[in-house]
Formats: sequence, C-alpha cells, structure tokens
Amino acid sequence: MKKSKSPFKSITECSYLVRPGDANSIGTVFGGRILELMDMTASICARRHSQTLVSTIAVEDLHFHRPLVIGMVVKVIAMVNRTFTSSLEINVEVFGEDTYKDEAFLAASGFFILVGMDQDRKPVPVPDLIPLTAEQIQRWEEAGVRREKRLANRKRE
Amino acid sequence: MKKSKSPFKSITECSYLVRPGDANSIGTVFGGRILELMDMTASICARRHSQTLVSTIAVEDLHFHRPLVIGMVVKVIAMVNRTFTSSLEINVEVFGEDTYKDEAFLAASGFFILVGMDQDRKPVPVPDLIPLTAEQIQRWEEAGVRREKRLANRKRE
Amino acid sequence: MKKSKSPFKSITECSYLVRPGDANSIGTVFGGRILELMDMTASICARRHSQTLVSTIAVEDLHFHRPLVIGMVVKVIAMVNRTFTSSLEINVEVFGEDTYKDEAFLAASGFFILVGMDQDRKPVPVPDLIPLTAEQIQRWEEAGVRREKRLANRKRE
Amino acid sequence: MKKSKSPFKSITECSYLVRPGDANSIGTVFGGRILELMDMTASICARRHSQTLVSTIAVEDLHFHRPLVIGMVVKVIAMVNRTFTSSLEINVEVFGEDTYKDEAFLAASGFFILVGMDQDRKPVPVPDLIPLTAEQIQRWEEAGVRREKRLANRKRE
Amino acid sequence: MKKSKSPFKSITECSYLVRPGDANSIGTVFGGRILELMDMTASICARRHSQTLVSTIAVEDLHFHRPLVIGMVVKVIAMVNRTFTSSLEINVEVFGEDTYKDEAFLAASGFFILVGMDQDRKPVPVPDLIPLTAEQIQRWEEAGVRREKRLANRKRE
Amino acid sequence: MKKSKSPFKSITECSYLVRPGDANSIGTVFGGRILELMDMTASICARRHSQTLVSTIAVEDLHFHRPLVIGMVVKVIAMVNRTFTSSLEINVEVFGEDTYKDEAFLAASGFFILVGMDQDRKPVPVPDLIPLTAEQIQRWEEAGVRREKRLANRKRE
Repeated sequence: MKKSKSPFKSITECSYLVRPGDANSIGTVFGGRILELMDMTASICARRHSQTLVSTIAVEDLHFHRPLVIGMVVKVIAMVNRTFTSSLEINVEVFGEDTYKDEAFLAASGFFILVGMDQDRKPVPVPDLIPLTAEQIQRWEEAGVRREKRLANRKRE
Repeated sequence: MKKSKSPFKSITECSYLVRPGDANSIGTVFGGRILELMDMTASICARRHSQTLVSTIAVEDLHFHRPLVIGMVVKVIAMVNRTFTSSLEINVEVFGEDTYKDEAFLAASGFFILVGMDQDRKPVPVPDLIPLTAEQIQRWEEAGVRREKRLANRKRE
Repeated sequence: MKKSKSPFKSITECSYLVRPGDANSIGTVFGGRILELMDMTASICARRHSQTLVSTIAVEDLHFHRPLVIGMVVKVIAMVNRTFTSSLEINVEVFGEDTYKDEAFLAASGFFILVGMDQDRKPVPVPDLIPLTAEQIQRWEEAGVRREKRLANRKRE
Repeated sequence: MKKSKSPFKSITECSYLVRPGDANSIGTVFGGRILELMDMTASICARRHSQTLVSTIAVEDLHFHRPLVIGMVVKVIAMVNRTFTSSLEINVEVFGEDTYKDEAFLAASGFFILVGMDQDRKPVPVPDLIPLTAEQIQRWEEAGVRREKRLANRKRE
Repeated sequence: MKKSKSPFKSITECSYLVRPGDANSIGTVFGGRILELMDMTASICARRHSQTLVSTIAVEDLHFHRPLVIGMVVKVIAMVNRTFTSSLEINVEVFGEDTYKDEAFLAASGFFILVGMDQDRKPVPVPDLIPLTAEQIQRWEEAGVRREKRLANRKRE
Repeated sequence: MKKSKSPFKSITECSYLVRPGDANSIGTVFGGRILELMDMTASICARRHSQTLVSTIAVEDLHFHRPLVIGMVVKVIAMVNRTFTSSLEINVEVFGEDTYKDEAFLAASGFFILVGMDQDRKPVPVPDLIPLTAEQIQRWEEAGVRREKRLANRKRE
C-alpha cells in the first residue's frame, strides 16, 4: 500500500455556490460554514493520498483574508504539503469568485493535519509525498518547520 | 460583454464526501441529493461562462448508471456543450470514487439547460462557445440535435 | 406481491414552504432544491405502488416553467404513469401557490424512472398499473412511446 | 378579504421520507424533526385559509403515539378546526407508513394555534370557518372548549 | 442506577445564532425551527438526568411569546421539573438576546414529557428528582397537577 | 459603548446532540461539523462581549484530542481570553459527554480570533477584558504571547 505519490495525484477542488442560508444578517458567509467546506475538502484530499480512512487532528494558521458575500462562487482547493509516518499536512485555500466580473481573490487559507487510520481507528502509515515543483518543495520544507514547532510546543505543556 | 469562450474557461468541478444523512436506509445516496449537486455545479459553470445570473430551465437524458454508497467520494464535473442566444446546454457527469482502491466510475450523467438573465429575470445573450477538441466539437453538434428535437416536441404539443 | 393497482392508490402530495435558505440572491428557489423535492415525492409514490425498495434510474423531459419565489408554497404531486416489469415511470408536477391571492400555477414538471429492488439491490417485478381515467390512459400510452425512444437511443449508442 | 370557508379549502398534506439524518442512534426519528414538519404543514394550512402571513403562537396536547423508524414514509395532514377573530386552531396528524406492508398508523397528533397578521406583524381578522361534516362540527366545538380553558388559565396566572 | 438528583445536575443550555435559513420572508424565525431546538435541548437534559435513552412523548402549554428576528442570539434552557417512574417533565424556556443592546426577553416556553427507555425501547425507571429551591419545589408541584389533568383527560377519551 | 467587562459576562455554552447526519461511515463526527459549532459559539461569545457585529479572522492551535461518536452529547464552551483594540481572542473547548456513564472528556480545543465591526464592515473598538481568576489572568497573558508571534510571523512574510 505504501508507495510514494506527488501532490498532483490527490489535489482536490470543490466549487460551491454561496446561499442566503450560509450567511449572516449582513450578507457575508459565516466562518463556520467555510471551515466545514475546508475540512471536507482536506479530508477528500487526504483520503485520495492515503487510501485509508482519515480523521482531522489539528488546524493551524487559518486566516480569513477577505469576506465572501452571498451570490459569490467559492472555490476550495486542497493539496498535500507533506506526510509524517501516519499524518498528513494539507494546504487548503479558499477563493472567492465574482463571476460577473470574472475576478477571483484569496478569501481564506490554512493548514489541516489529518491522520490515516484503519477501521479500529488505529493510525496507519501513509504513502510518502514526492514534491515536484519549486513551490511544492518549499511547502514541504515549511511543513517540516511547522511540525518542529508543534512538537516543541507539546513538550513545553 | 458578449465575446466567445472555450469550454475550458468555465469547466467546474466539485468533490463531495457522501454522508449518512445523504443516504437511504440501505446506505445508497438519494437520487435527489445527486440532482441537487449536479444542478449547483451546472449553475456555477453557466455563470462562469455567461457572467450573468442564470436559471435552470430544463433537465434532459439524466441517467443514474451505478449507485453511490456512503463513504464514497463524489466528483461532479460540469462543462458547457453549446450556447443558443441566451441559453446554455451544460454537460454534467458524476463520478463515484472508492478512494481505498483508487478506482472511479461514472455514476450519473445528464444535460442541464440554463438561461442567462438580468436582475429583472429578462433573458440576456450569453457569449458564444468555441469548442476546441474533437470531443467538444461532437458535443456541440449533438447539443444542436437535442435542441432541434426539443423545439419539434414543443410545436407538437 | 404482484397485483394490479390504479394510479390513485399511490398518488403522493407534498406541500412545502419555500425558505430563504432554498433561494438564491435574487429570491428565487434553486432548481436543485426543486429537483430534490421532486425526486423524494417520486420515490414515495413508487414505493407506495411497488411495496419494495426503489431507486431512481433516470429523469426525462424535466422543465422549469415559471420561477418560484421566497414565501410561496410549493405543492409537489407524483403519480405512476406506467410500469414495465420492474421499473416505473412517475409523473411529477410542481405547483407554485401564492396563498395571499389563492392562485396556483404549474412551476415545473418531469418524468422520473425508478426501479423496484430487493435488499441486495436486485430488480424485482412491480405490480401492474391499471389506468382508470381518460387522462391516465393517455399518460400510460405516452409513457410507452417514451420508453420505445429510450430503448432505441440506447441501441444507437 | 373576510369570507367564510370550509376546512376542505385549506387541508394540507405533506409526505416525507425519513432519512438517517433525521434519526437518533437507535434508528428512530427525533421528536424535534417531527415537530418542525408539523409546524410547517400547519403554517401552510393556516396561510391557505387566512390568505395572510401567519405566525405560530401556541402548541397544545401534542402527543407522540408510536415511534417512526428510518425508511418509513411520514404523512402529515393539517386541517383548520376553528377560527377566533384573528387566530386559527389547526389540527395536525402525523401518520407513519410502512410502504412494504401497505400499513399506516397514527404516530403523532396535536393542535397548533396560529395568528394571521399583516406585514407589520399586526393581527388581522381571518375568514370564518364553516364546518361541514359531523367530525368537523365536533372538532369546531372542542376547539371552543380548549380556547375557554386557555383564557381561564391565562386569567389565573 | 436509580438514585435521586437535583435539577441542577442536568440543567442544559444551548445558545444558537439565528440565520436567514431559519427565518421566513419577513425575517422572523419559524416556530418549527424553535420547536426543534427546544426538543433537542429537552432531550439532552432528560438524558443527563436519566442516564438512559429517551424519547419525547408529549408537548404541553407551549407558547411563543415574542418573535425572534434574524441576527438575534437564541438561548434555550431546559431543566427537569419532576419525574414519574419512567417519565420526566422538562421545563424549556427560549430567550431572545439582542446582543447589541445587551437585552434579553422570554420568546417561548413549554413543557416536554420524555420517557427513559432501554435499547429495545422498553420504559425504564429514572432517578427521582429532588427539588432544592422554592421555585423548583413550585414547579415540582405544578408538574404533578398537570399530570393529574393528563391522566383525567385520557380516561374521558 | 466601550466599557470593561469580565470573561464571565460573555461566556457561551451550547449543548448539542450528535446525529447520524453529522458523522462519517464509521460513526465518528466530522471535524468540519465540530469546527462549525465552535465558530458559531465563538461568534456568540464575541458578540456578547463587543455588542457589535463580529467576523472570524483567524483560527489557531486547534486540536481534536479524542473522537466524538454518534449518540454522544457535545458541549461547546467559549470564553474571551483577551481583547486587542478591535479584535478578540476566544478560547473554545468542546467536551464529549457519555450521558449513560455521566462521564465527560475534552474532545477539541482552539483559539478563534474575531473582530468587532460596524454595518459597513469597518473595525470598531471593543470593550476591554478584565480577567478575574488566576486562570483567566494566565489565559490573558498567553493570548498576548500568541499575538506577538502572529505579528512577528506577518512581518517575516
């Protein structure tokens, strides 16, 4: 099962039309609705890479850069940044599209950490990630730095 | 506003994780849930092409080829087949993915006809479609045949 | 299990109040939401006739005639047009009601083809339909014509 | 606007297919989900009678008689029992249908009191109800007794 | 399992942000949505007291006192009033909060009767309730009066 | 408008019953569903403190400690850790409750950063937070350290 794959193999995209039921009283989408879409897209991406069940264990550096308003199209893109034995760091970006003007902007971004597991929820090793482009290599390295910090934080607690 | 575009400009993809709430008592996804996802993806595709508001006016030749079960990933892909003054025929395909085996299959397909409109719901012309590949040209021609049949049916009524 | 029934035995009605969460940014209901209600109503109708599990296999000639706006009541009516061994063609009509004026209009209509099946998803024969009124006999005949076309189309593919 | 009507003019029916997302961990439908369907059906019924906006102001004698399980069809029926100047008492009954056996049973019932109102949420008079059958006349009388009790209770407080 | 508990042990609170999807066309929340939240909160309260599965069997004296509008916070509070062998009367109150003005008001209230049960849906005894405050003792007594009326009504039927 | 408040003034609690529709195919709740509940609870807490509209701008150090399974009660608690001119750091903790055993455990926790804003989405100052207990003072200090890191990270980018 454990073979190497590039990030292109599991890249996941979800376009979604923002509805009034997703928004608050001034017409902007709830952060919680976006978080749910980001987690779903990250989960599919992690499953495509790992070919196992997966479970989200952490969210990091998640930022909402610009508000999304009703009537906009939301495009969520998830890609594996790096794997660590049985866990995966997924890069998730949310774009807002004003389809009338054919314009798009980065609305939110963050890192989702998921773990591959079997039917008994025991962690299982996931395939290694082979970054191919310069950007993928940079993300692979930054994911390592973030993991070091996480482990250091955990020790201090 | 009215300029020609290829189908690649507006192709729309949505990956979605099937949940127990989307399925019936024997674990297969309701047709109605898939129809809703297909219509949403077709709408986004039509908006990306037309850069106007759009509204679905018809669904044709929609077939469910194989059942989707809980735990599968669903991938919906929508592409413009042809435009007719203010209407667009959108080709929508739904793939079921068993991410554990890295296998996918065509689960459903159909044609959604939408119309571009302004804020008063008056039809407006949409950009022409320029098919580029052999497959796109074939779909463009078949969409014309389907439209002829539709108009003929309407006359007979 | 297999005995004949009239369309009256399984006619199914669902009135539903359109909410802001069902509509787009200009206050009209998404086609996808209507498709979901139509499929649910067709499924109940098919189950009442067949007394088996059912699954939607096709949607045909589905048209949205007039838009439904927030605050309207939607009434969906499903009736069996004809049965073919293990499949059923269901006629589904959606009416929009402006309850303030006590007016109603046909908002959408279409044909849903479902198949009766057992717990292993194997097709099973369904009871014959006995049309009683002139309108039911006409629909029964037209359903036969549509089925001929479907089979002819399939051969050509 | 204010003219008399029989209960038949506004009788409202909604058939609904119970899904796993409507049920708890042992497969029976949440009371809250049924209450929501009952209130929606009562609201449509009250709007059809009053031809105004309506708002629920009370629920009385609501009983769950038998549990509903996943895979059952739920049929909700609402009918006006009596009107009082600007309020209406609606009788709501919920039937569970086991479509495999063609059996139905009363699963829940209760009375919903709604008030007709204008755009500023001011109460407005609603048309009188003319009960026609013996059962409708009995319900009309019992609704009067219930209202007397409600008013007596309010005084005591 | 059967030991006495005070109402404080199982008091349940749920704050919820009202969204456009919960409201009708003039911006006030549907009664049915509030009923669903009240039933969910009552169920959690009853489960915390009984430590068993529970099922709602009746709703009584439920009143909507003031409308809730989009953008308001809704706070639902449920507390056990009294237990009777295997059933519990739960007091549920819904407060509307205008967080801009730091004001709250009682929007709805009612009594939910639930029964404790085992996995086969057989009723099981629930722990006794020991009311501690003057208000809890009064509610305990009033719950007894309501139960007498319920039993008397049932006999008359 | 700008006056100091303690964290107790805006503490927000939401108990929620996990349903099959919130969970995946092995019966554990989706991370995305929990994230949505956490964001909603954080938003209410921030609104209660600021008495303004609020919008989530970041999520940090969010961890899922243990899985939540269907049938469990989820209790989300949000409290303001610290304010910075117009932004607030909210501490959100999610507890899983096994009501049968009367046991609870920390299932998830994280920090949500929200900003107070006016109707034009311009940031507005929010009341200062006055921590009262030793734990609140510690959280207030740690929130300051996290903010320093955030600002340092932003400079490096």
